[in-house]
Amino acid sequence: MIVQKYKDMLSGKSVIRQLSEFATARGAEIGYENVFDYSLGNPSVPAPQAFTDRLLHLLATKEPIELHGYSPSLGITSVREAIAASLRERFGLPFETRHIFMASGAAGALAHAFRLVTQPGDEILTFAPFFPEYHPYVDLTGAVLKVVPPQTEDFQINFEAFEAMIGEKTMAVLINTPNNPSGVVYSKETLERLAQVLGEKSKELGHDIFLISDEPYREILFEGETYPCPCTFYDNSIMCYSFSKSLSVPGERIGYLAVNPACQGSGDLVNMCGQISRGIGHNCPPSIIQLAVAHVLDQTADISVYERNRNILYRELTDLGFTCVKPGGTFYIFPKALEEDAKEFCQKALKYDLILVPGDTFGAPGYFRMAYCIETEKVERSLEALRKFVREEYGR
Amino acid sequence: MIVQKYKDMLSGKSVIRQLSEFATARGAEIGYENVFDYSLGNPSVPAPQAFTDRLLHLLATKEPIELHGYSPSLGITSVREAIAASLRERFGLPFETRHIFMASGAAGALAHAFRLVTQPGDEILTFAPFFPEYHPYVDLTGAVLKVVPPQTEDFQINFEAFEAMIGEKTMAVLINTPNNPSGVVYSKETLERLAQVLGEKSKELGHDIFLISDEPYREILFEGETYPCPCTFYDNSIMCYSFSKSLSVPGERIGYLAVNPACQGSGDLVNMCGQISRGIGHNCPPSIIQLAVAHVLDQTADISVYERNRNILYRELTDLGFTCVKPGGTFYIFPKALEEDAKEFCQKALKYDLILVPGDTFGAPGYFRMAYCIETEKVERSLEALRKFVREEYGR
Repeated sequence: MIVQKYKDMLSGKSVIRQLSEFATARGAEIGYENVFDYSLGNPSVPAPQAFTDRLLHLLATKEPIELHGYSPSLGITSVREAIAASLRERFGLPFETRHIFMASGAAGALAHAFRLVTQPGDEILTFAPFFPEYHPYVDLTGAVLKVVPPQTEDFQINFEAFEAMIGEKTMAVLINTPNNPSGVVYSKETLERLAQVLGEKSKELGHDIFLISDEPYREILFEGETYPCPCTFYDNSIMCYSFSKSLSVPGERIGYLAVNPACQGSGDLVNMCGQISRGIGHNCPPSIIQLAVAHVLDQTADISVYERNRNILYRELTDLGFTCVKPGGTFYIFPKALEEDAKEFCQKALKYDLILVPGDTFGAPGYFRMAYCIETEKVERSLEALRKFVREEYGR
Repeated sequence: MIVQKYKDMLSGKSVIRQLSEFATARGAEIGYENVFDYSLGNPSVPAPQAFTDRLLHLLATKEPIELHGYSPSLGITSVREAIAASLRERFGLPFETRHIFMASGAAGALAHAFRLVTQPGDEILTFAPFFPEYHPYVDLTGAVLKVVPPQTEDFQINFEAFEAMIGEKTMAVLINTPNNPSGVVYSKETLERLAQVLGEKSKELGHDIFLISDEPYREILFEGETYPCPCTFYDNSIMCYSFSKSLSVPGERIGYLAVNPACQGSGDLVNMCGQISRGIGHNCPPSIIQLAVAHVLDQTADISVYERNRNILYRELTDLGFTCVKPGGTFYIFPKALEEDAKEFCQKALKYDLILVPGDTFGAPGYFRMAYCIETEKVERSLEALRKFVREEYGR
C-alpha cells in the first residue's frame, strides 16, 4: 500500500518555498529585477574557473571508462587522500584517508552521520535558530530532533536550556557554524563549553554523546573572523561538509563526512557509512565531480560579494533601528522584526516587494531571515523599499 | 552510541568483492591480462562520444551559476520531460513529466520505490537468481526481502512457488529483466501471467501489490530478442532505470524512477519521492549529468562487444557439456556447475586463473556467474584455461 507518512508530508509546503514562489510570480508581473527576493540561500557567484578547467581537462585526458567508472563505495581514494591532507593542514588534526567518506553534499553526509550514532527513538539536540530541513532529515530516520531555544542576544548557545534538555535518550548534538539563518560563528568559548558539557554528560549518562558539525558555510567568513573548528574541541565528533556554497556547485551534489581521528570507533565509522549507503540508495557522489573538486579543495568562488552585501544591509538595518547580531559569515542575516509576530511583519513587507522569511521556520519567532546571496546592485536598490516599508508600516 | 547493526555488517564481505580482490592480487603476480576475471559487472566499453561532447558543450556555453545550480528536488524539468517523451515513444504508455523522478542510478530509484509502497515488516518478493544487493537495499528499510526459488530450466518465474509465498504482508514484487545474473529476458508470457497473479492476489488480499521493475540492462539486448516492458502488463508498477550500463557511466550516478501513469496514486508518487529524499539524504543526481544524459537518451555505448562475448562463451560452454540457458541480454551468463557445490567448483577454477562467482550468492546454488564485460580477446584466451580446467578437474 502507498505509504501514508510521505503522502501526508505533501500538504505541508515549506514557508521558504512558498515565498520563493511568490517572488517568482511577482517577478513575472513587474520584472524579477524589481522583486527584492531575500528568500533563498542559493549561491549567486559562479564556480571558480579552475573547477570548470579541471572538468575540461578530465574530459580531454582521461579514458571515459575510467573517468565515468564506479567510484569505490567510500569515495575515490585519491580524492579522500587529498581531503584528509587539506584538513590536516588546515585544522591540525591527524586526518587520514580512512577518516573521510565522500557524500552527496551535506544532506548526504548528515543522513549517514545520524544513522551512525542514533537508532529510532533516540534524540538529537540542535540549537535555534536552525536550518528547518533538519526536521525531516532527522525525523525520517526514526530519531527525534529536539530544538534548544535560542540565546537571542548573540545567537551563541543557550547553555542553561541545553543542559536541562540532555537526557538518557540524547545520543547526538547537531550544530551549524557559521549558522544558517543567523550568520553567527560559534566562538572558541562556546565550543569549549559545549565540549565540556558533552564530556560531563557522557560520563554521567554512561554513553557517549556525539557532536555532529554541519559546516557548509565554513569558507564564507568575513574580515576579522576566524573559524574555530568544532572537531578540534571534542573527540567524539563528525564533520559534515558540502562544497555547494564555497565552490558555488550546489547542483553537483558533492561533500564529505570526516570522522575525528580521536573519535570512539573512528576505525569503523567510515566503513559503516559504506553499509548505511546500501540501505539508503546513496552510492557515492559522481566520479567526475569528485575528481574535479579534489583539484580545487583550497579554493572558493569569489565570495567577496557576500561580505559587501552583509556590510550594506547591517549598516542600513541598524540605522533603521533594527536589533541585529552582526553576521561573521554565510550569506544570511537574522534581525529582530519590528512587531512581535514576524509572520505578520514579513507579510506586510511583501507589499514593498521585499521577500523576507519569518524566523518561526528557524525556531526563533519574532526574527526574520534575509539571504543576501544576490547582486550588490539589487541590495542597494532594495534599501529604498526597506526604508519605505519601515516608515509607512511602523512610523520610523 | 555507535549503531551495532551497521558495524556487524562489516564482517560480512561480499563474495563478488572477495573474488575481485583475489583477481587484482593475482594480477599483481602474473599480470592482470593473464587473469580471466569474470567477477565484476562493470561496463567495459567507453561512454558514447555524444555524452562527452554534450558535457563539453554545457561547460562551454552555460553560465556556471545555472549549470551547477540546484536541481529541483524531483529533477530538472526539461530532463524529466525528455525522459517521459522517450518512454512514451518507446513503450506506448502515456508518461508525462510528473511521472518521472530523477535518481542517483537504479540503487537510488529502488531506495525510493521500496519506501513508497512498504513499511517496516512488510514483505517484498523477488525471484532467484537475483542481484544480491537487493538484500541490504530492502532489509535496511525495515521491510523483508523473500526470495522465490528459481525455475532452473529457463530462469523465467517459478509460479507455483511464487503463488505459495504471497501473503498478507506482501506489498511488492521486485523483478529484474534482463536478469543479473542469468542474462534471461522475461517473456511476454511470463509477464502476462505475473500480472494476472498480482491482480488476483491483490483482490484476494484486499490491498494492491506493486510491481517494481529494476531494468538497468534493458538496452543491452541481443539479436533476435525483444524487450517486453513490464509496466505495459500491469498498472500498479514502478520502473527503476539506470544509465550506468547502457551509457557506460556507472560512476556518474544517474537514473530515474518512472511511475506507470495508470498506477494507483500516480499523481502523488513522484512528489512523495521528493519527501523520501529528505529523509535519506538523496538530493537529486548531479545537474550537469542530468543535462548531459537528456541529450543522449536514445543512444548507448557500443555494446556489441557483449553480444560477441556471449556468443563465444555460450558456444564453448555448451560444447564442453555445460547446461546453460542462453542469455538474451546483459553481460552475464549463468551455467550449471559441474559438481553440486558451485563454491567448490569456483574454488577449483581459481587454480586456472578463472574467476567465476558461485550462484549461492544469487539464490541459485549449483550455478555460477560469468560477467563477460571484458575484452573479446581476453574471452578468447580464457577458453584454453576453461578447457584445461574442465579436463583436469572433471575429466571431460
